[in-house]
Amino acid sequence: MKLSARNQIPGKIKSITEGVVTAEVVIELDGGGDLVSVITRKSVESLGLAVGKRVYAVVKSTEVMVAID
Amino acid sequence: MKLSARNQIPGKIKSITEGVVTAEVVIELDGGGDLVSVITRKSVESLGLAVGKRVYAVVKSTEVMVAID
Amino acid sequence: MKLSARNQIPGKIKSITEGVVTAEVVIELDGGGDLVSVITRKSVESLGLAVGKRVYAVVKSTEVMVAID
Amino acid sequence: MKLSARNQIPGKIKSITEGVVTAEVVIELDGGGDLVSVITRKSVESLGLAVGKRVYAVVKSTEVMVAID
Amino acid sequence: MKLSARNQIPGKIKSITEGVVTAEVVIELDGGGDLVSVITRKSVESLGLAVGKRVYAVVKSTEVMVAID
Amino acid sequence: MKLSARNQIPGKIKSITEGVVTAEVVIELDGGGDLVSVITRKSVESLGLAVGKRVYAVVKSTEVMVAID
Repeated sequence: MKLSARNQIPGKIKSITEGVVTAEVVIELDGGGDLVSVITRKSVESLGLAVGKRVYAVVKSTEVMVAID
Repeated sequence: MKLSARNQIPGKIKSITEGVVTAEVVIELDGGGDLVSVITRKSVESLGLAVGKRVYAVVKSTEVMVAID
Repeated sequence: MKLSARNQIPGKIKSITEGVVTAEVVIELDGGGDLVSVITRKSVESLGLAVGKRVYAVVKSTEVMVAID
Repeated sequence: MKLSARNQIPGKIKSITEGVVTAEVVIELDGGGDLVSVITRKSVESLGLAVGKRVYAVVKSTEVMVAID
Repeated sequence: MKLSARNQIPGKIKSITEGVVTAEVVIELDGGGDLVSVITRKSVESLGLAVGKRVYAVVKSTEVMVAID
Repeated sequence: MKLSARNQIPGKIKSITEGVVTAEVVIELDGGGDLVSVITRKSVESLGLAVGKRVYAVVKSTEVMVAID
């Protein structure tokens, strides 16, 4: 599957915290730094996500803001 | 200002394409790779964004998806 | 690529309207009814989207609201 | 109330999973297939959502991505 | 129609800027201050939006961030 | 930090409900009315959010819909 979302950043999973409905997945980016994702707990299961697994953080462009110091 | 959005990734602006309402801002991340942001053209003006300027790409955690190969 | 976004609805493209930065893509769902997507014009190009092409409308669960009459 | 969000897809509720803050609502679309929504648990209560209830899944166009095989 | 989105703030339209695909609608809130919305130009037409018209700004809770000084 | 998100509405925190992953923060706006935000529980901690604290509700323009009666 090829997706219109233009931001697909490679990394590996550093931690997963599971709630009842949602889960927080922290991704250590290959380029340095962490990215935090909140998805459903069921997606964590269906994708077989686990600490150390290689993944992409995917973000739709309209969801990215810009900030300056 | 300190923001609840936990993803704030440093980089510098590579290109800006302005439409009537929105603008596309491509950010070259310090860690490598590009991130594309779509914000309003007025935000580009009010922040004084320009190619080469140092910025942060900011994303709310609930907007980050996870993908596997 | 397998994505955490759990809503992937099949259909085919009915119309595309391109602006400077964004494009509106109307998808005729296989199950009936249309779904409207706003993505960047560059994604329309990079995916080679055109009227009649088979696609999936993809939506992250946290972006879906519920309404009652 | 008439809403700017152009995607309003009819269906009925198939399941509800409630967490502390959020709830996952699975909607069986009239056109076939399921759509998953994550809203607050309080919205589930205030709308009186329950399995079997007729609802609309509502999505803002800027939240819809497009994918190809 | 009753919607799960819990933020529905009353105001009236102060300005509309229309692009090819999207439109920017500035809403003067009854409680003071402005709120900016970007929706499709077609939604502006189908809702008959115009300067001075009374509207609600509607936001899903998962889209609201919190900031401190 | 100065942010591209153009909606930054002042208020103070009325209540916080914490789940495992997410938290619901209700903000009483200075202009009247409440705004509900769902952020991660860790953001509540890192910002030191508490009932009575002065905050801003921040929303990206592309996340704001418009409704009419």
